[in-house]
Amino acid sequence: VSRGEFERIDLFLRAFEAAGGATHGRAVLLGAGDDAAILAPGPALAVTTDALVEDVHFRRQWATWAQIGHKALAVNLSDLAAMGARPSAFVCALGLPPEVDDQALAEMAGGMGKLAARFGAILAGGNFSRARETSVTITAFGEMGDRVLRRDAARPGDLVVLAGEVGTAAAELAWLEKGRALPPGRSALLEPEPLVESGLCAARHASCGIDVSDGLAQDLGHLARASGVAIRLHFAAIPQSQRFGVLTKDLPAAEKARFTVAGGDDYALVLAVPPEPARRLCVEIGGTVLGRVESGEGVAIDGLPAGTSVGGHNHFRR
Amino acid sequence: VSRGEFERIDLFLRAFEAAGGATHGRAVLLGAGDDAAILAPGPALAVTTDALVEDVHFRRQWATWAQIGHKALAVNLSDLAAMGARPSAFVCALGLPPEVDDQALAEMAGGMGKLAARFGAILAGGNFSRARETSVTITAFGEMGDRVLRRDAARPGDLVVLAGEVGTAAAELAWLEKGRALPPGRSALLEPEPLVESGLCAARHASCGIDVSDGLAQDLGHLARASGVAIRLHFAAIPQSQRFGVLTKDLPAAEKARFTVAGGDDYALVLAVPPEPARRLCVEIGGTVLGRVESGEGVAIDGLPAGTSVGGHNHFRR
Repeated sequence: VSRGEFERIDLFLRAFEAAGGATHGRAVLLGAGDDAAILAPGPALAVTTDALVEDVHFRRQWATWAQIGHKALAVNLSDLAAMGARPSAFVCALGLPPEVDDQALAEMAGGMGKLAARFGAILAGGNFSRARETSVTITAFGEMGDRVLRRDAARPGDLVVLAGEVGTAAAELAWLEKGRALPPGRSALLEPEPLVESGLCAARHASCGIDVSDGLAQDLGHLARASGVAIRLHFAAIPQSQRFGVLTKDLPAAEKARFTVAGGDDYALVLAVPPEPARRLCVEIGGTVLGRVESGEGVAIDGLPAGTSVGGHNHFRR
Repeated sequence: VSRGEFERIDLFLRAFEAAGGATHGRAVLLGAGDDAAILAPGPALAVTTDALVEDVHFRRQWATWAQIGHKALAVNLSDLAAMGARPSAFVCALGLPPEVDDQALAEMAGGMGKLAARFGAILAGGNFSRARETSVTITAFGEMGDRVLRRDAARPGDLVVLAGEVGTAAAELAWLEKGRALPPGRSALLEPEPLVESGLCAARHASCGIDVSDGLAQDLGHLARASGVAIRLHFAAIPQSQRFGVLTKDLPAAEKARFTVAGGDDYALVLAVPPEPARRLCVEIGGTVLGRVESGEGVAIDGLPAGTSVGGHNHFRR
């Protein structure tokens, strides 16, 4: 660590705090600045690590630095939500090429701080490293309650419930790739909203869930495989946002359907829940029943437009 | 995550386990394979995150993949040691260019697994991402006892105790940069040994310590600044390894001294300890008294050869 790096760490922390983010709090006994942070003793902790890498997960020409900071934390909070955990703290390792200047760094910290503040996630520490490409690797911690949302706990007869929506992020990506500016409003692709409250609520009713980051069909495939069950969805049951409608109105049905079932970057939650609690859960989180769990294996989607590709999401091709 | 990535994650986990590394155990209620891992409830946890980036922290022409895997974990365990924490678990985020093949990945996992096994650190989860350059970002967890080694707790009158040794890694780097092969034996630079037992022992006698990763003078400078004290060392008191002697026998005194006080990548521990416990600590960990803490500020080194540069370590210049 050079002296210049300490100044940049300080700049990052100040911008994070200026945006409302906390670097100290109940869950963190000792924060950034020592060899390690110390998390308070307490309940079981969900731990997840996820990275955003330039030109793999984001492109600088499309995303602001604030959006990059937001998304790097959001994808981790989504993983915590998918366990039914309440975010408590996180650490952030940055790989920074020389051209990422102080203003870019402050904007990234600001986007991250604003999201962290909303969910009470304390920035406990981190690491700066020089690198050829920008990367943001976050490890996030969440406090577990009594119930865990595992991906291996679906049982035949459960209903499949969606919290949030799928397809809009992929539709935005296709839109951007055509060189067009996104319509006004929050971008599902660039500023995903982690469904933390839905995950906490789901953990009271359900014991099985996963976040949708690689496409609905692929992530439900993981859930089905881990649980040793089959999943049958009704394509017509999948809700579509107004924004999705705007972005896809001129596209063929099969392409729209591909965004919906295989688009990726959605950060929705899908849950497998016995029928009675499923109905209560849908009311509480504004969720939608997409189908059901059956015995067997694999994911089947009834009513898919002819020619729809359901292969998994693979981020950008270089 | 593409299907190919799942296979590579599986390959990594199997190679890690084949080397003796654990992916499950007491500290980990739920391991890799879900949206997040779950760490068992318990004591306060030290948390640190540190990255190795290709051509910044390692060069493929010098380090084997096993050494890269070893070092990525070792630098994190060293941070835990410097808090007085006992390693319990870690997560590992890899940035992988296409040319890192299955064998390279397996060797990296092997080096990491062997070290993890020695210190009981369970691999709880991770993330793979495509990238242009190889990076290994580890976040490690350690269980805290009653005492913490902070960097802001040095008091005038304390003795400065070194555990481990400094200078050899920098001497090896200079050796490699001249195009020579390292002499036989464990490489301080490529396979640093985290001083976990020394840290645990130190936490019973001391309340102030830091690991030496950026050079002895610079890291003691952090400790002095955080504690609001001055530190005075005697250069002649700094022990030198036999390997250091071999690597530097033809070099001028000022260059040897620079390796010792400003070399970096040492992963030694320095502790500030009141005189009585300091003597007991030195016996227990084979430590050396280098000097003492005084009132004032800054780090002074008596007896440095004329012309020695004590500026901080800055990894490789590109």
